[in-house]
Amino acid sequence: MKTITLNKNISKRIEQGHPWIFSNEINRGKEKDTNAAPGEIVQVVTHDKTFIGKGYYNPGSQIAVRLLTRDKNENINDDFFKRRISEAWKYRKRLGYVENCRLIFGEADDLPQLIIDKFNDYFVIQTLALGIDKWKPSIVKAINEIFSPKGIYERNDVPVRELEGMEQQKGFLSPEFNTNIIITENRNEDGSGGIKMHVDIANGQKTGYFLDQQDNRKAIRNIVKDAEVLGAFCYTGSFEISAGYYGAKSVLGLDISQNAIEMCIKNAALNGLENTCSFKCVNAFDELKNLTKEDKRWDVVMLDPPSFAKSRTAIDKAVTGYKEINLRGIKLVKPGGFLVTSSCTNLVPPDLFYETIVRAARDAKRRIRQVVFNAQSADHPIISGQENTHYLKFLIVQVL
Amino acid sequence: MKTITLNKNISKRIEQGHPWIFSNEINRGKEKDTNAAPGEIVQVVTHDKTFIGKGYYNPGSQIAVRLLTRDKNENINDDFFKRRISEAWKYRKRLGYVENCRLIFGEADDLPQLIIDKFNDYFVIQTLALGIDKWKPSIVKAINEIFSPKGIYERNDVPVRELEGMEQQKGFLSPEFNTNIIITENRNEDGSGGIKMHVDIANGQKTGYFLDQQDNRKAIRNIVKDAEVLGAFCYTGSFEISAGYYGAKSVLGLDISQNAIEMCIKNAALNGLENTCSFKCVNAFDELKNLTKEDKRWDVVMLDPPSFAKSRTAIDKAVTGYKEINLRGIKLVKPGGFLVTSSCTNLVPPDLFYETIVRAARDAKRRIRQVVFNAQSADHPIISGQENTHYLKFLIVQVL
Repeated sequence: MKTITLNKNISKRIEQGHPWIFSNEINRGKEKDTNAAPGEIVQVVTHDKTFIGKGYYNPGSQIAVRLLTRDKNENINDDFFKRRISEAWKYRKRLGYVENCRLIFGEADDLPQLIIDKFNDYFVIQTLALGIDKWKPSIVKAINEIFSPKGIYERNDVPVRELEGMEQQKGFLSPEFNTNIIITENRNEDGSGGIKMHVDIANGQKTGYFLDQQDNRKAIRNIVKDAEVLGAFCYTGSFEISAGYYGAKSVLGLDISQNAIEMCIKNAALNGLENTCSFKCVNAFDELKNLTKEDKRWDVVMLDPPSFAKSRTAIDKAVTGYKEINLRGIKLVKPGGFLVTSSCTNLVPPDLFYETIVRAARDAKRRIRQVVFNAQSADHPIISGQENTHYLKFLIVQVL
Repeated sequence: MKTITLNKNISKRIEQGHPWIFSNEINRGKEKDTNAAPGEIVQVVTHDKTFIGKGYYNPGSQIAVRLLTRDKNENINDDFFKRRISEAWKYRKRLGYVENCRLIFGEADDLPQLIIDKFNDYFVIQTLALGIDKWKPSIVKAINEIFSPKGIYERNDVPVRELEGMEQQKGFLSPEFNTNIIITENRNEDGSGGIKMHVDIANGQKTGYFLDQQDNRKAIRNIVKDAEVLGAFCYTGSFEISAGYYGAKSVLGLDISQNAIEMCIKNAALNGLENTCSFKCVNAFDELKNLTKEDKRWDVVMLDPPSFAKSRTAIDKAVTGYKEINLRGIKLVKPGGFLVTSSCTNLVPPDLFYETIVRAARDAKRRIRQVVFNAQSADHPIISGQENTHYLKFLIVQVL
């Protein structure tokens, strides 16, 4: 195995277990000697040859090495992937995420840049770095051995792969199957009931469905009962259908995508909620503003906008956007009603998000009381010091 | 009504809705004219006579006025208290806190320094400031009218009352009743089951039972199943009995108070968990250290220490204490097991608490993954800008 030697002073980050080695942390003189190929497994050592870990190398990325193990005796092979995926599955089962879950959440599961979502018997994977992409056969083998799945699909149609020198691609990693499936989430304690959702594995956003809000969709169950509910940026309607399922009097969902709205309508029908849930294909950002000019107010307003900030320089703009959306949302809540609001970008940390909602409320001249402030569901565990693992903010406030 | 005039430049805090007026924010020249009596309802105005609010006055307190309303037309009388308590009850019912709840959480319910806990048909109240204490008859009247309770009890045996120039006292505010009651919490969705707990209204800590951890006690349900569980600072065993109820293989609870341990044993018996839950009267802080010297490790270690910091100067010491306890706790967790850890002091904010656990894990040379990071249950709502309303931190981490 080729060796990457670090500079003399290594960062606290690496010492404390962070799996990334940046390009400028490598002793370049020695690196040239190793001549490791892109994607190759290398060992990383300090300047005085102390073993740090093994990981995959990509000279074309700012993150030159992503560590897979800190154990010198652990070899990266089929068994390694089967062991890691088994451990991750054990954790999800322990926490009650069995039927559907994010099985592998990249760095948080010590498998950097690997995403695996489990939708009952179907698996969707993303290999977002060259070094993990090379192990796709081992990963697929492990899934087959552990789960005997009905199907595995690759959703590598993501631009980030191009930064790693890979093409975007998607397709079957198992015999072909019907990629339009139905999942059930948030069943009753006795396993009955639950919310049924169509998931388009091949064409839905990301892996087809946002499992990260699973617990948060249940967190609305009390406040939506008998309520008139407005949901903006509803995508395929998971929050809106949940609101209907938990007893909302009426639900109106807004999204700019006609495809998404058509899926919403199918999902409402699937749950027998056609008469409760209606949807409108419209620019939600504009529509929120238009609605504030009318008399109608809602018991519950839910906002789940897409990520506004893809880069650090865009944070200010993102915060301005969140504030404006939430200002409009707050204005639409009846006195004593609730705002349910999310942000899915890791570049806006929880405190900043919370402060943004506070400022929006102040501008709307409304007082708010915090009911719930969550992150993503625990099948997406958060690692301290790895900011990108804590990306979702989910806040419910009462608007007085 | 007498008038309190503020200094020319009023703080953002007051402008933004905070209900406290500090002594040094009052224009002293004009205040003398008003000559309001301790506990009297006054109106507060700016230097140019703009109405700010009405509240109760205490010249002997650093917080000279606590505002009850910002509405000039709202009068402070029996109806006021009935209206406020009714609104608070509506909020709890809406969020599903019906059987047992903190009905009034002081400032967060616009009734500063008033605490009312509801234990099914029994109510325990604390009036922690002179100005609210004077309205005790109105408060009791409102509770009687809204709930027709089986009993109301006053737990004003708290030192903070002395700062307000009042005596500590406790006793019945209704016809006498048996103050040893049994409550049921965290029932199944269909209303069956749940955890039964003896509550000693007259002699238990604070109001007799810590409702603030109600949801968090349910948050352990998956991780304790079939697990060996250690609980330190267990008080009357609410987390430990919950662990047993949710299927733990064995539970050992530690507390320094013999009274508390006796209550634990009664609570275990009440739930038919005598064979699962055992308890030991011991200094938990020392015992955690002793246990690290033995071979035994646990699947789940739960730490719920009392508040360490009662004053700002004690924060550093508190953080040192939390770190040491959590270091000991982490060492006792089997690889892949869980640490369940709480802090109930508002002087240690969530970020600092989290960082303390991270540092403890580092010292223990163990990696951790965040599963859940909660505040208190939502019947204790949090108001932004009022730090004292966000006091409880509840964290579950997996310890690798």
